[in-house]
Amino acid sequence: MSAPIPTRRPAVEFWFEFGSNYSYLSVMRIEAMAHRSGVAIVWRPFLLGPIFQALGMKTSPFVAQKEKGAYVQQDMARQCVKYGLPPWIWPTTFPRVSVLPARIALLGADQPWIAAFCREVMLLNFVRDEEIDDPANLAPILAALGLPPDRILAEAQDDSIKRRLREQTEEARSRGVFGAPTFFVGSEIFLGNDRLEDAFSLAAEQGRATGNRA
Amino acid sequence: MSAPIPTRRPAVEFWFEFGSNYSYLSVMRIEAMAHRSGVAIVWRPFLLGPIFQALGMKTSPFVAQKEKGAYVQQDMARQCVKYGLPPWIWPTTFPRVSVLPARIALLGADQPWIAAFCREVMLLNFVRDEEIDDPANLAPILAALGLPPDRILAEAQDDSIKRRLREQTEEARSRGVFGAPTFFVGSEIFLGNDRLEDAFSLAAEQGRATGNRA
Repeated sequence: MSAPIPTRRPAVEFWFEFGSNYSYLSVMRIEAMAHRSGVAIVWRPFLLGPIFQALGMKTSPFVAQKEKGAYVQQDMARQCVKYGLPPWIWPTTFPRVSVLPARIALLGADQPWIAAFCREVMLLNFVRDEEIDDPANLAPILAALGLPPDRILAEAQDDSIKRRLREQTEEARSRGVFGAPTFFVGSEIFLGNDRLEDAFSLAAEQGRATGNRA
Repeated sequence: MSAPIPTRRPAVEFWFEFGSNYSYLSVMRIEAMAHRSGVAIVWRPFLLGPIFQALGMKTSPFVAQKEKGAYVQQDMARQCVKYGLPPWIWPTTFPRVSVLPARIALLGADQPWIAAFCREVMLLNFVRDEEIDDPANLAPILAALGLPPDRILAEAQDDSIKRRLREQTEEARSRGVFGAPTFFVGSEIFLGNDRLEDAFSLAAEQGRATGNRA
């Protein structure tokens, strides 16, 4: 008799950046999508800045190219209506520095509070239009989630977390990520909030094919 | 008694380029979408090359950036499956010169054969992997549509059509088009095959609001 094959819940790797407006849309939608499809989320915060630099870009293409920026304004306004999110405003600072919340998200990637934390940071950036790299703005979010802000903010600044965020960003680059959000299902790569459904469909399908379910 | 207000069928302006792979997806889908939603299509062929040049780009971003090119391969393969199109191949020449078919499409933009002509040119490029700027490859397409190839090919090379294609491309640029396909519903601009449904939904909704139907 052979031992039972361990089942592994199908999963989508979710690569996102707190300064990215299309990542905002996906962060707000992904937990509900995961529940509906019985697929797990592997939370993969990273920094887009070093990726853009490696590709020879100085900043977001939405800032560098005025046509793209003007379009993204229209598109985001409509997308927010479509997904039932608050009316879209262009943040007064864009893209915002997102190092500190990315470190906290890395620290909490496997914790039950990760989804709610990410949503709150995104709302801070894209609805409340406030800085997200500021401990004074993040502490109340952590406290509201029942977490000890001081301890988490300290742990997030530990050298090991700083190094892991650099490594995770380098992994994104080496796996061909060039924008956010990006989803992986195994080696299949999906770019953009528009591919959220496709990524979860593929993961759920693969889960059914191997008999693994949520 | 006032005269009845003339009704105008709601419409989507469809800006496309025969060398563009995402335009291919929309050209194959748009006529069925228009029928389903009771919305007219205003066919707007243009050339992406001059637009890219005006934006400081030498070629398609899918060629210029290898990460994007690698991604688009995966994405197109999946999109073709999703839309029931033939298996995706990357054309041996990309992006293909598309001046001649664009001129013919401009000539026939209001003709009943426009949708079928555009589909056949796209299949020539993206399925049969053949040159689309070649009269010898376009003549059989025109003939199969019951049209006189020699006359149409001659008319398409008339100076007035050449000038109109330049003007149409310039109009695209001046209205903020920076990629293809692009859809307009009035002043609302939608970029990419992923926004086809949204553009037609908006046009249909505006049609209902003003009491205009197909």
